[in-house]
Amino acid sequence: MAETPYKLVLLRHGQSDWNEKNLFTGWVDVPLTEKGRAEAARGGELLAAEDLLPDVLHTSLLKRAITTANLALESADRQWIPVKRSWRLNERHYGALQGKDKAQVKEEFGEDQFMVWRRSFDTPPPELEDSSEWSQADDPRYADLGREMPRTECLKDVIERLLPYWEEQIVPDLKAGKTVLIAAHGNSLRALVKHLDGISDEDIAGLNIPTGIPLYYELDENLKPITAYGRYLDPEAAAAGAAAVANQGNSSNSSNSSNAGNQGH
Amino acid sequence: MAETPYKLVLLRHGQSDWNEKNLFTGWVDVPLTEKGRAEAARGGELLAAEDLLPDVLHTSLLKRAITTANLALESADRQWIPVKRSWRLNERHYGALQGKDKAQVKEEFGEDQFMVWRRSFDTPPPELEDSSEWSQADDPRYADLGREMPRTECLKDVIERLLPYWEEQIVPDLKAGKTVLIAAHGNSLRALVKHLDGISDEDIAGLNIPTGIPLYYELDENLKPITAYGRYLDPEAAAAGAAAVANQGNSSNSSNSSNAGNQGH
Repeated sequence: MAETPYKLVLLRHGQSDWNEKNLFTGWVDVPLTEKGRAEAARGGELLAAEDLLPDVLHTSLLKRAITTANLALESADRQWIPVKRSWRLNERHYGALQGKDKAQVKEEFGEDQFMVWRRSFDTPPPELEDSSEWSQADDPRYADLGREMPRTECLKDVIERLLPYWEEQIVPDLKAGKTVLIAAHGNSLRALVKHLDGISDEDIAGLNIPTGIPLYYELDENLKPITAYGRYLDPEAAAAGAAAVANQGNSSNSSNSSNAGNQGH
Repeated sequence: MAETPYKLVLLRHGQSDWNEKNLFTGWVDVPLTEKGRAEAARGGELLAAEDLLPDVLHTSLLKRAITTANLALESADRQWIPVKRSWRLNERHYGALQGKDKAQVKEEFGEDQFMVWRRSFDTPPPELEDSSEWSQADDPRYADLGREMPRTECLKDVIERLLPYWEEQIVPDLKAGKTVLIAAHGNSLRALVKHLDGISDEDIAGLNIPTGIPLYYELDENLKPITAYGRYLDPEAAAAGAAAVANQGNSSNSSNSSNAGNQGH
């Protein structure tokens, strides 16, 4: 086993097409915007500036996380590291909300229901029908999932499918002394942060992770954070970005808004 | 074992900075030019147009191949597939020629010696000193190679270090029925084509592989090509590109040349 601290970097993908349009995305495989690509490249520059060079990359199966990782590693000059991918790092499956406008959902169902669906720990949205244009039931990348294929998820569900991958694939890399980069999503990273920092089921609702800014954790021999909540490599931008995430759903024409955040999932 | 034919796609990286400058590159980790990035994206479009979608990607450890693969998979909408990387897919190590201008080498050492170094099967260039600015002896990505770390290579050496990876990592993917994409280099792909097509040590000197154009092989149950030399997905562009490779070293100011090829290694 390598010496502690173990080094872990979390990177939420940059702005996607549907972040910009303020739609619930979940497992729908939308690309980054140009702004999102620039955020990703800057994330890599921040890593390089701190000489925090990943030895191994873990990504979800969604292109917004994969492209973010590719661009970050390109600007950090670290493209050659090994890559592992898993659906267990995917964004939360948003069920029947996938493809819907956040502001419209809020207007139609009310603020309370909207916040339950966005931030309740254990209440998933209604299931997405396999016949929906936004379903991934027939996507070849998930062909091996069988009965594990979700039709909707709450954050609790995300934690349950994420932790086996954390234990079996990521922890061994950390214990081997590798600097691990995880490129993933707002809710899969919230799930991991909840686990690492021991955040309660209630308090996790208030935690928002900004896009494109590496979040660095040093972990002790028990895989507990040496500094609670880690450290963003650009703390000012991270604070602004987290506030913008918390503020989602407050504009029905966000793509024309001057709000720099609006970094949905 | 899956049904034959097994499906294999070879993709030589797009134009790199040093291709454009007409320098011997080898293991020096130079990036793609904008033209090279466009070639890579078009390679992915050709794959998508034929519905020849890779299930797994193998790359070298050099960024010009990795970026080519990333861009091709992005334009083929196939970024989620598993990735494996190995130094065994790297370009031929060009020894003391790395970093040198091809036209100058030709002028200094004469046409005959130039062609021996470029195309002789079993005569490597002089070794590169570890103290050279173009040495990779201290590069962390090769830290595990130990005595296998080359200081120069001829094509025979490339075949010897490539074939174990082919047998142990790529053939099992083919036999599992996966469409395999290999993103690599002029000489590591020549080495593989020599093996697949049973080309003689002499005849391989005349084989040139163009950049950025997928070369598709269907292989029988003995891993022999069903059609000799495979099939380029854009045969006209491939013929022009191969001719340009053969013509290398004939211009000392190639970066100002209008020669569309000049696709060195």
